[in-house]
Amino acid sequence: MLAPSDLDRLRVVLVAPRNPLNIGAAARAMSNFGFSRLRLVNAYEVAYREARSAVGASAVLAGAGEFKTLADAAADCTLVVGTASTAYRELRHPLRRLEYGGRLIRRRLAASPVALVFGSEKFGLSNEDLSHCHWLMRIPTRAEHESMNLGQAVALCLYELVRDAGAARAKPERKRRAEAGDLERITELLLDVLRQSGYVNPRTAASTVEKIRRLVRRLDLSAADAVNWQGMLRQVLWKLGRGG
Amino acid sequence: MLAPSDLDRLRVVLVAPRNPLNIGAAARAMSNFGFSRLRLVNAYEVAYREARSAVGASAVLAGAGEFKTLADAAADCTLVVGTASTAYRELRHPLRRLEYGGRLIRRRLAASPVALVFGSEKFGLSNEDLSHCHWLMRIPTRAEHESMNLGQAVALCLYELVRDAGAARAKPERKRRAEAGDLERITELLLDVLRQSGYVNPRTAASTVEKIRRLVRRLDLSAADAVNWQGMLRQVLWKLGRGG
Repeated sequence: MLAPSDLDRLRVVLVAPRNPLNIGAAARAMSNFGFSRLRLVNAYEVAYREARSAVGASAVLAGAGEFKTLADAAADCTLVVGTASTAYRELRHPLRRLEYGGRLIRRRLAASPVALVFGSEKFGLSNEDLSHCHWLMRIPTRAEHESMNLGQAVALCLYELVRDAGAARAKPERKRRAEAGDLERITELLLDVLRQSGYVNPRTAASTVEKIRRLVRRLDLSAADAVNWQGMLRQVLWKLGRGG
Repeated sequence: MLAPSDLDRLRVVLVAPRNPLNIGAAARAMSNFGFSRLRLVNAYEVAYREARSAVGASAVLAGAGEFKTLADAAADCTLVVGTASTAYRELRHPLRRLEYGGRLIRRRLAASPVALVFGSEKFGLSNEDLSHCHWLMRIPTRAEHESMNLGQAVALCLYELVRDAGAARAKPERKRRAEAGDLERITELLLDVLRQSGYVNPRTAASTVEKIRRLVRRLDLSAADAVNWQGMLRQVLWKLGRGG
């Protein structure tokens, strides 16, 4: 888990973004996950202005820094990571999958600032930009369609950074489960209902009891639902008794 | 890792989406990660038409199914998972974090179809919609700003499903590292350059050699870069020899 000071050490750097919706979406995802340091390099002025006027994540946008070059935007970072698709393979930068790259970034954030750099929607990062990066990170999209929307790419990278591996193993909050006594009461009521309804064949009645008992256990009822079922079955039983 | 047949078993269900950009972004993320079954419930007609005319992910959109109700859209699924923020807590549906919920969905996808349901941008899922869900899943956004953009939310959930936990531990492809012989040649060349430049103090020369040797090892050079450094240092040495 990232501490607040770790979150504060990440700089999300957008190089030459053109689409105000993408700048806004990047800022919104940052706000969703608790990051605040947005840096824009050479942003298209109109796009930046429009993004600032959009709702949501306005605090992140209002505090965004503007820079002329990636070198300036990443000057205080000890690690500069470019995001890229495998199309960049020929550049011989180490190219790490998001799952692994995220782990390296998290580790560095515990100590010092890291720049996570996204290229423009149309052209990605230039060779000049890439030469400022220590290594590249790629989102594991499939080869047939690897180019992602900028706002979605930012959201995915930030999610991987705040993702809690422990939560994948954690059990969800458990409801209180029904006790065996409740289940047996339900079994009895259901059997009564079935007998009165003519569902139970007298010749196989003994095996039916066991069948129904197992069926009720498989419902895996909560304590609260066990109460509901008893109420429903009692009502049905009462109605059957009156009608019969 | 999800098999192709598992990917094919997921139905991404958008209930009452209003914004064509969001429908398009959802379809694009599906295409990025190899999912193809998009289902729209009660989609705003204009939005759907505009989304279909957008670039990217057109195969997913062209094959999208249209339904009147969530019940119809999820009828063939053995598990129906709604996405929600913690605002839904009062409904007493089990609410699972994406990391854990994703694991449960992956396991079910190995056997039978699963519906992953997203509500409209403005209102989320209605109580009626939620009553069709087995449980709810939430993206771990922070409490102060938990509402996510629809396209980003879809992308995050799909990424969690295709995410490869093994890749987080995997070592990246290693470059061939420099051998000790190369490092020692670089050390010698650098020392020669420093001696000729007057950097080495004759009285501390012995400790300097060791200092420089350690410094060169800390560079953690690749075999290719070791060649580059030798070339550069030889050139500098030649120039120093000519000038001196």
